[in-house]
Amino acid sequence: MHPFLKACRREPTAFTPVWLMRQAGRYLPEYRALRARRGFLELCRDPDAAAEVTVTAVGRLGVDAAILFADILLVLEPMGVGLEYSRGDGPVIQRPVRTAEDVARLPEVLPEEAVPFVFETAKRARAALDGKVPLIGFAGAPFTLAAYLIEGGGSRDWLRAKRLMHGEPGAWHALLDKLARLTARYLNGQIAAGVEVVQLFDTWVGCLAPAAYRELVLPHTRAVIQGLAPGVPVIHFGTGTAGLLELMREAGGDVIGLDWRVDLGEAWARLGPGVGVQGNLDPAALLAPPAEIRRQARAILERAAGRLGHIFNLGHGVLPETPVEHVIALVEAVHELSRR
Amino acid sequence: MHPFLKACRREPTAFTPVWLMRQAGRYLPEYRALRARRGFLELCRDPDAAAEVTVTAVGRLGVDAAILFADILLVLEPMGVGLEYSRGDGPVIQRPVRTAEDVARLPEVLPEEAVPFVFETAKRARAALDGKVPLIGFAGAPFTLAAYLIEGGGSRDWLRAKRLMHGEPGAWHALLDKLARLTARYLNGQIAAGVEVVQLFDTWVGCLAPAAYRELVLPHTRAVIQGLAPGVPVIHFGTGTAGLLELMREAGGDVIGLDWRVDLGEAWARLGPGVGVQGNLDPAALLAPPAEIRRQARAILERAAGRLGHIFNLGHGVLPETPVEHVIALVEAVHELSRR
Repeated sequence: MHPFLKACRREPTAFTPVWLMRQAGRYLPEYRALRARRGFLELCRDPDAAAEVTVTAVGRLGVDAAILFADILLVLEPMGVGLEYSRGDGPVIQRPVRTAEDVARLPEVLPEEAVPFVFETAKRARAALDGKVPLIGFAGAPFTLAAYLIEGGGSRDWLRAKRLMHGEPGAWHALLDKLARLTARYLNGQIAAGVEVVQLFDTWVGCLAPAAYRELVLPHTRAVIQGLAPGVPVIHFGTGTAGLLELMREAGGDVIGLDWRVDLGEAWARLGPGVGVQGNLDPAALLAPPAEIRRQARAILERAAGRLGHIFNLGHGVLPETPVEHVIALVEAVHELSRR
Repeated sequence: MHPFLKACRREPTAFTPVWLMRQAGRYLPEYRALRARRGFLELCRDPDAAAEVTVTAVGRLGVDAAILFADILLVLEPMGVGLEYSRGDGPVIQRPVRTAEDVARLPEVLPEEAVPFVFETAKRARAALDGKVPLIGFAGAPFTLAAYLIEGGGSRDWLRAKRLMHGEPGAWHALLDKLARLTARYLNGQIAAGVEVVQLFDTWVGCLAPAAYRELVLPHTRAVIQGLAPGVPVIHFGTGTAGLLELMREAGGDVIGLDWRVDLGEAWARLGPGVGVQGNLDPAALLAPPAEIRRQARAILERAAGRLGHIFNLGHGVLPETPVEHVIALVEAVHELSRR
């Protein structure tokens, strides 16, 4: 079994496996060249091209896992909300969901009919990887999907989402119910198509107070995770979650993804036994000289020392301005410094 | 002694004192009317007007403390970096500090010569308050000041600041040394002018990894706090700090200011005995109906129950779109629900 899969199961590995969120992204010249000719959605809808992007990054970087080339909002597009990737890839939702009526009007979509190209990409990427490294599938968690749907795009404070959440809890729960069913079906489709691990991105959940998370988010995230095909490890990820870790664990997941704003050792102690941890280098660290990158990677490995189930990663995606050679230096450093 | 000062000293109070960051801000119609006629800097430079803004909010809301009307970046203006408050009050620094040479060129400024109007505002506000409620002074902490100086304004990721921090630690420490000396002198000047408590705003420090905070920030924040006139309580505040609380306490402060992304009870347990806590309602909660505001205030008071030294506040400033009557409802709810 590959070290990445072993680590997901908290089994001993010869070294700490590493992959990076957005490892096939804009910081890669090959990817930028491809994107100069084609839009993001167009690329996602072409399973051959998307599978190639998925696989190329692995060869270029020497990482221990591939991740499906897609986006967490893709699955919302068939709902008719007017999803577009404009302004430097920032997603825009032309017809945001703001009221109880908007929620009721949202159609139930079947991912297999709505985004068949994602499953096709998974099949082709899995075949092209040929067992070299495992393939990760992913989806947005109900809170993060709802936040985008309500705001109509990214936001710093997610105030419109919070206003619905606290002002119309009935509409909020109806929306998250719908999104939880969709997400479980979407991930199960990816699993059927060949992904070996899934990551649930609750990217922006860290904007919430713990009490709000417990009451208005946790049950829906748990429903997604409990609805997944058994035997496939689940990585449950968010950013800014230093105050939510115990609750995220309660919601589920074999591995909890940390960002960089929490000490990995303390976070793991709080999470308790029986769970792995992914993270947790600041993506900004990759802008520093390689010697400093190595120093920070070593510090994180030391914080994880002696525990089974650490997957090295950044605390969020690779920044577009990151030099490729710094990413490669990180991957090499993690492999070398963690070899047991 | 007023309940707010007692709480800062962890002495018993008849009810939990409450004040709100940005309680004299854009959500107040009186303030918007004033600002329609005058720029922000102009207002700060007029001690009579600034003192009036400070005092008016207290009467309007019934809060237990006044806070000096000013801004954390004011003290940087005399450094010649081209500070402006344009674009809806967002600060802009025309000549950011990006290199070791820029840092070396920054002049040492004497607050008493550079921003005498702040001290004059403090004197007049203290006199106008006439002992009704205590007056809080404040300053930006070295990290947050440096982050604005380097970025040239606000930022989501503070990447330029992190790049200097990790790439040129010598220049970084030189900058923070300079800012720490300035900040201690500035706060001591406010204390001499009559403020009774000071709050150190390390507003954006939550963007950092704990290891980076310990090495590159903590010594400078500690230098500020240790340099202050004895006997004046210090509130040490930041946002997104759920992963930094123990280190912030190590840096100093009689009261640690929490944002809303951490459970108050757990945070206090982690901070340990001998320290007060300020917070921690999500400012977005004030957009919800008053019954929901009351419910959330009660939940926070319950988390603080039985411990001395809780000051109720939001986790960050009042949002401009907040209805004034919701703020008043919160203050009344805190007073009523906490009465012992």
